[in-house]
Amino acid sequence: MKKQDPSKRIANALEINPLTAERKLVSFIKEKVKNAGVTGVVAGLSGGLDSSVTASLCAKALGAGRVMGISMPEAGVTDPHDVADARDLANKFDIRFRVIDITLAVLGIRQNLTDYKMDAQISNANIKPRARMTILYYYANLFKLLVVGSGNRSEIRTGYFTKYGDGAADLLPLGSLYKTQVKKLATHLGLPRHVIEKVPTAGLWRGQTDESELSISYEKLDMIYAGLDLKLKPNVIANAAGVDISKVEHFIERERRMAHKLRVPEIPKL
Amino acid sequence: MKKQDPSKRIANALEINPLTAERKLVSFIKEKVKNAGVTGVVAGLSGGLDSSVTASLCAKALGAGRVMGISMPEAGVTDPHDVADARDLANKFDIRFRVIDITLAVLGIRQNLTDYKMDAQISNANIKPRARMTILYYYANLFKLLVVGSGNRSEIRTGYFTKYGDGAADLLPLGSLYKTQVKKLATHLGLPRHVIEKVPTAGLWRGQTDESELSISYEKLDMIYAGLDLKLKPNVIANAAGVDISKVEHFIERERRMAHKLRVPEIPKL
Repeated sequence: MKKQDPSKRIANALEINPLTAERKLVSFIKEKVKNAGVTGVVAGLSGGLDSSVTASLCAKALGAGRVMGISMPEAGVTDPHDVADARDLANKFDIRFRVIDITLAVLGIRQNLTDYKMDAQISNANIKPRARMTILYYYANLFKLLVVGSGNRSEIRTGYFTKYGDGAADLLPLGSLYKTQVKKLATHLGLPRHVIEKVPTAGLWRGQTDESELSISYEKLDMIYAGLDLKLKPNVIANAAGVDISKVEHFIERERRMAHKLRVPEIPKL
Repeated sequence: MKKQDPSKRIANALEINPLTAERKLVSFIKEKVKNAGVTGVVAGLSGGLDSSVTASLCAKALGAGRVMGISMPEAGVTDPHDVADARDLANKFDIRFRVIDITLAVLGIRQNLTDYKMDAQISNANIKPRARMTILYYYANLFKLLVVGSGNRSEIRTGYFTKYGDGAADLLPLGSLYKTQVKKLATHLGLPRHVIEKVPTAGLWRGQTDESELSISYEKLDMIYAGLDLKLKPNVIANAAGVDISKVEHFIERERRMAHKLRVPEIPKL
């Protein structure tokens, strides 16, 4: 049998059957909610692709009234259109909806920091997803819900999330799907075109985009990781994805360095 | 060979050699800081037993100037003596010390909660350790430090901590030691008697104590878990620890139910 072209193998590996994926993810959510003995789930709704897919899967799994979606904008940073998109999604899928502005929460945390530095971009930015996580768990505690995060496999492997912030949840239904696969699932689920086509952003400061921060498009990134899943050699992957081999090596190293972000704290043996 | 009495076996299992424990924990901290390529660690300092032991081990491992200790009191809840004890410890071990009041952070988070309920004690209480975690990671990001938590094995097995709050850290050096063993280590490390003898509390509301919330003394609790480590039967453990068998069963079940708190989020296979 002739060995297939690496580009084709990678493209095949990134193919998904959206209907099968939907069914598996819906039963995963159902099962976990049942096992935990809770009444439903709560999820952040940014108005972006991943959280819209996550929330609509939860709604399909649990039905109306058992999913709560929370939009958590920050004044001067969050685009009001994103809050409107989150609200539209909640309406479409009968999700209980709240808008909770995090501006005062973030100011409250910063206020007393004796070493507060306005220009420490990452330190400051990370406060926000942690404030959002705190709000989601407040609701989870209050109404006996699981917190569902929207992290996908591209974000998880690159560590492109805040440890104990947006990475902190009880379930990550999209954790096995690369970003380009989530996009295909979104189309199948009938999400609005402008949500699917939105430029991906963590929304931590104005103008932030995932692809400029990661210095690569998700299309190429996912090809790199899918190539690694297939155990292809870095030079073969680089060639197939149309990137320099140093890019492939960078993302191998980045994954290794970021792995701690989704590990439990290290405990010594005695 | 005559089989040893279960009470004696449990007592033996809870014995530690404090010098060996100190050496192992100190090299664990050293190694992890080196591997992470960071300059040091940051830890919360509550003035209580566990955080005092943790911080002093860090100081022994890394030396002066590479450990930062942060006292994070809340107005009307935290006893000012605890802040003074944290400061004294920092002085004794040459730890860089900060006091950051979390009152405004907690109010800022609560402020916009559309479903805020003053009497939802657990929901409200959990905001506090999450605010403290956010502050510790702010410092960790700013100064390139690891966050060291002070959770011990008794807390971990009972799930007596806030998920993504005080349970959230990069390292948990005391994670293999039961509370009664931490106490022995504290004596060996020369911590002040009044810190060692302080009534254990999570400090989330006035008058809160671990042992009343758990409805058991740490002495008996640790005997139960040590008995389970030895694979003794519940009735044998109950007899040795001087508790009802329902107590032993309760803590077996509690451990199972709380295990999710120190697991990574669940991701479905596709």
